[in-house]
Amino acid sequence: MTVRIAVIGAGIMGADHARIVAEDLPGATLQVVCDMDEARARAIAGRYDAEAATAPEAVIARTDVDAVIVASPDSTHAPLSLACIRAGKKVMCEKPLSQSSGECREVMQAEAASGTRQIMLGFMRRYDPAYRQMRAALTAGTIGRPLMMHNWHRNGSTPSADFTGAMAITNSAPHEFDILRYMLGCEPVSITATQPMRSDDKVAPVVMVLQTVDGQLVTVEVNNNAAYGYDVKAELVGETGTIATNHVSYTRMDKGATQSLGHDADWRDRYAEAYRQQNKAFVRWVQGGGCPELAASAWDGYAAAVIAECGVKALESGSRQDITLIPRPAFYAGATGKVA
Amino acid sequence: MTVRIAVIGAGIMGADHARIVAEDLPGATLQVVCDMDEARARAIAGRYDAEAATAPEAVIARTDVDAVIVASPDSTHAPLSLACIRAGKKVMCEKPLSQSSGECREVMQAEAASGTRQIMLGFMRRYDPAYRQMRAALTAGTIGRPLMMHNWHRNGSTPSADFTGAMAITNSAPHEFDILRYMLGCEPVSITATQPMRSDDKVAPVVMVLQTVDGQLVTVEVNNNAAYGYDVKAELVGETGTIATNHVSYTRMDKGATQSLGHDADWRDRYAEAYRQQNKAFVRWVQGGGCPELAASAWDGYAAAVIAECGVKALESGSRQDITLIPRPAFYAGATGKVA
Amino acid sequence: MTVRIAVIGAGIMGADHARIVAEDLPGATLQVVCDMDEARARAIAGRYDAEAATAPEAVIARTDVDAVIVASPDSTHAPLSLACIRAGKKVMCEKPLSQSSGECREVMQAEAASGTRQIMLGFMRRYDPAYRQMRAALTAGTIGRPLMMHNWHRNGSTPSADFTGAMAITNSAPHEFDILRYMLGCEPVSITATQPMRSDDKVAPVVMVLQTVDGQLVTVEVNNNAAYGYDVKAELVGETGTIATNHVSYTRMDKGATQSLGHDADWRDRYAEAYRQQNKAFVRWVQGGGCPELAASAWDGYAAAVIAECGVKALESGSRQDITLIPRPAFYAGATGKVA
Amino acid sequence: MTVRIAVIGAGIMGADHARIVAEDLPGATLQVVCDMDEARARAIAGRYDAEAATAPEAVIARTDVDAVIVASPDSTHAPLSLACIRAGKKVMCEKPLSQSSGECREVMQAEAASGTRQIMLGFMRRYDPAYRQMRAALTAGTIGRPLMMHNWHRNGSTPSADFTGAMAITNSAPHEFDILRYMLGCEPVSITATQPMRSDDKVAPVVMVLQTVDGQLVTVEVNNNAAYGYDVKAELVGETGTIATNHVSYTRMDKGATQSLGHDADWRDRYAEAYRQQNKAFVRWVQGGGCPELAASAWDGYAAAVIAECGVKALESGSRQDITLIPRPAFYAGATGKVA
Repeated sequence: MTVRIAVIGAGIMGADHARIVAEDLPGATLQVVCDMDEARARAIAGRYDAEAATAPEAVIARTDVDAVIVASPDSTHAPLSLACIRAGKKVMCEKPLSQSSGECREVMQAEAASGTRQIMLGFMRRYDPAYRQMRAALTAGTIGRPLMMHNWHRNGSTPSADFTGAMAITNSAPHEFDILRYMLGCEPVSITATQPMRSDDKVAPVVMVLQTVDGQLVTVEVNNNAAYGYDVKAELVGETGTIATNHVSYTRMDKGATQSLGHDADWRDRYAEAYRQQNKAFVRWVQGGGCPELAASAWDGYAAAVIAECGVKALESGSRQDITLIPRPAFYAGATGKVA
Repeated sequence: MTVRIAVIGAGIMGADHARIVAEDLPGATLQVVCDMDEARARAIAGRYDAEAATAPEAVIARTDVDAVIVASPDSTHAPLSLACIRAGKKVMCEKPLSQSSGECREVMQAEAASGTRQIMLGFMRRYDPAYRQMRAALTAGTIGRPLMMHNWHRNGSTPSADFTGAMAITNSAPHEFDILRYMLGCEPVSITATQPMRSDDKVAPVVMVLQTVDGQLVTVEVNNNAAYGYDVKAELVGETGTIATNHVSYTRMDKGATQSLGHDADWRDRYAEAYRQQNKAFVRWVQGGGCPELAASAWDGYAAAVIAECGVKALESGSRQDITLIPRPAFYAGATGKVA
Repeated sequence: MTVRIAVIGAGIMGADHARIVAEDLPGATLQVVCDMDEARARAIAGRYDAEAATAPEAVIARTDVDAVIVASPDSTHAPLSLACIRAGKKVMCEKPLSQSSGECREVMQAEAASGTRQIMLGFMRRYDPAYRQMRAALTAGTIGRPLMMHNWHRNGSTPSADFTGAMAITNSAPHEFDILRYMLGCEPVSITATQPMRSDDKVAPVVMVLQTVDGQLVTVEVNNNAAYGYDVKAELVGETGTIATNHVSYTRMDKGATQSLGHDADWRDRYAEAYRQQNKAFVRWVQGGGCPELAASAWDGYAAAVIAECGVKALESGSRQDITLIPRPAFYAGATGKVA
Repeated sequence: MTVRIAVIGAGIMGADHARIVAEDLPGATLQVVCDMDEARARAIAGRYDAEAATAPEAVIARTDVDAVIVASPDSTHAPLSLACIRAGKKVMCEKPLSQSSGECREVMQAEAASGTRQIMLGFMRRYDPAYRQMRAALTAGTIGRPLMMHNWHRNGSTPSADFTGAMAITNSAPHEFDILRYMLGCEPVSITATQPMRSDDKVAPVVMVLQTVDGQLVTVEVNNNAAYGYDVKAELVGETGTIATNHVSYTRMDKGATQSLGHDADWRDRYAEAYRQQNKAFVRWVQGGGCPELAASAWDGYAAAVIAECGVKALESGSRQDITLIPRPAFYAGATGKVA
């Protein structure tokens, strides 16, 4: 069965999903590209012989659409995921599920009420070879019990001038919140957030320190104006060794008294393979395979939202905040489990 | 149009092609897996819901087969490519086209007589990100005019005990011969080949030095028993700088007084992306796109065969051999062109 | 003039200083090695044809001793530095000057009262090529204004079983406190300290976050049981780029499916060149050159002690502590100045 | 005993030796700096409170000179070494001993006739940490029996416009010839030499392939106009693994979409530690220690000269040349011995 996919949102990320579906996903076809901006929808749809549309709920309801990828603005993620649940269609929703943990709970309740898992959340790093190797080393016991995880999230520059420290936590950091939960297999219980001062009016980095219920420490730097390029790094420190992401560059150059490696321009280059594998897993799920083991769920979206809310409070208050999650519903059992 | 592909040969490489076609090639479907060993054909075909067969020529002739991937033993590559030409079907033939340059010429003549290009040769490195970046840097003039290219081809160990130095040249080195021609955009005119002595009965490395018609020097080490892993490296030395392949490892580990990166187990890991991109290009070609710009042709297979023949003579005689190619037929104009 | 040096303390560090003086310091000679344990003093002195002694104050007073290197137990650093001041002899005192900031102030007062600078403190990292390159890049404006500094201090294992988190702050972290002050050219104003939990009874790492008076953020990990080796790293993040210490290894090895670099066994290997340059600077100073520009002073020892005291309080209380230094005495003007 | 050293030659290398003796060599003092150009001699001598002179033989004869470092033009190395032998003074002579193997034999005969070893040849790489680690790994059996050694010798640019390919072999390559003999512990028996063509009139690289009496293969690239910086690299390929020099840079920088390491400006930076250790060994020898185990002898100078002569013939004739050494005189037994 060829899965007919609708991509909702034709911005940077939606365009990339459309390309992946059209060119790199066996077993799938790009049926519709939907965007409130009709010209944008047409531009992307036209590239791949797909239909263009502007009304997302109507697209979700179409009988010739088997599954949905939501890559529209953040505030629409939850409503559109709910629409997919109502339509009984599986959805791969870009993160965040919602910036409001309350809204995430509504989505979880609706999904649970439907009786089947329908939402896969776009925390694509779980499919990245680097994080997979880290997780495998951890599980194999190669570095012993995990003690700390250090994370760096650096972008060349912020998309817009009015980007704030709170937005660094709610928009960029959720990838870090998810991967630390996934990697350590347990939940954070407290968070602090601090910012240095820049000399200009760009948003300054945010440095967070989290403690987990198992007594691990996690540091997170989100630096949205790192200037030099897109650079995401992590180091997992165990009791007997460490494993870290390595800078991947296919070539190196000797020229002008330096030896240099290139940096990725943005996340699409850095995570190209992760996006492809994630979307392949989504298609296999829609085709009837079990819910992908690596995939993030609505529960993971809820957890990331709660941590982000606490992080913003920590930044604004200047003091450590406790992180309190509702008990994980049985419906989501198995998701993000402990390292045995 | 979905391209129905027959994979001929169900050994290591054939199995990998079957997997790529079945799982990673949008627009293609794995129709038949053919191997003289029926059990082997069934094993691979069964994995992907394809048909199994044992008679390659019959498979090539089937009306429900649109295109062919040849990954059977080396000696069958030319006859099966000729069968594809007769059947009017495009073929992606694993290297070498033939170890006999004379047989390569027969294939070229048949292809030219057919009036259209039908053969793509599996020199997949042209699709590897590292070599693509090297070529791009060269074309952009970043390192100036190319002066030298150094190449290393290292395998963990030889597949069989009776592997010889001549086989290192005819079986392993053709990838090097092709990439140096492709990278430098001109033909080699002489070759020397020497071997050190091992203390055991495994085949020793072969070190070759080639000169090109444009006065460049190329060194090639083929070390089939490097023991430590699969490791292919290259450095292109220009008049103003150099560009080299960089060791790609997604993670690094600190443990036991060392910091380490992993080596690939074999070429399938190292060139996974190159194989995928090469086969995507093949499918697009079958679907009606133009002959892929990067792809190697029968002409490239002929050139590699001539160089290998001269390399074997150089090794056996202990003296430098001239390399003489027939003039490139107009039919293959455009293939492996000069850097402008 | 050949500077006759007495090394006080014949433990690991004293033995290393004795070796440097005897074998690697032109213009200096090793006159006396002093240790309360006479056998130990004799063992080291004998290696280099120096005299052995057991009474440090008598050694300091000797007329055939021109200058002193103090490498005895921490609690003796301040008293012996005071003895050197009284004897009018310059002293290169291993860090810490004292773990008590009050005692550091007494030393400063005595030194100021003497009218001349006599103490050089063994924060040898200031002489390390890596930190010197970082500082040079900062001063040259290559990475813009500094925003953050990340520091890692990892030892293979703790010397003794009763090493505590507080000791990680008072014994290991002062090197970090000094280098951050030196690098950023300003003082920290607050500190937090947290520890993850280990599964065994070894001391767990301590993670500290400091803010400077200029609004920079500094993270410090002290991991005394890192297991894999001695590893000190730092990254300085500026507004337009970053500069970090690079892993220095003269060779790399390909073997057993990995490519590996070696880790240093301990700080003597890692900082061999820094110690040599530091001690050379000390000798030049004793010979009449001006007080070495890079060298740490008693003031720097005081500052490190205050920060460590606040760090311990932060760790024990679980809350952020303000760091308050006395105003820098004019006597120490020029030491650890601002980046212009 | 303080060794009073005369440095003969006040060019780039002589100035560097004068600095090392004056500032970095305990147990030695810089007595005289001698150069035919009096102003140059005065300039260097003045820096370190040494005497200036212009007549080398007179300097060698002085009673207040205990030992000599020869760093004058190549053609004077042998005559001045002979003068040192006559004066009964030990000499550390910069390479080459002579570009004429015949003249090297005269020096060997004179040294043997004197009854004691008096010449240490400035093949300083033997004291470099990278080559020492390579040799140690080899001796320890870590990579198995050596099969091949690859060597690269790259300079930013040639000192003068009339530098030729033959000079690349006689002036630059001797360091490679010595280190391969030292590393492999046996002698080369044949050599080929080839050059690519440059598009300008600068000297092109020379690529040499040598075979040793034990059946090993060695490649050497000498690229005197590599443009990007000074870069000397080597890889030793054993039967079970490889060990290679690693690019040493104390820091790395992320800026402008690249991550970069610095290249050394020239050999003085790259080999600073090797020169210092070599000269320390020389002083210890003069002080009465045994002839330094690592040091190169006149015999090694002779061997390098023969190989260079054969290399030039190979380049000029375009054909492989046999390398024939006289039997090693018993006087030089022990020098450059076999790996046990």
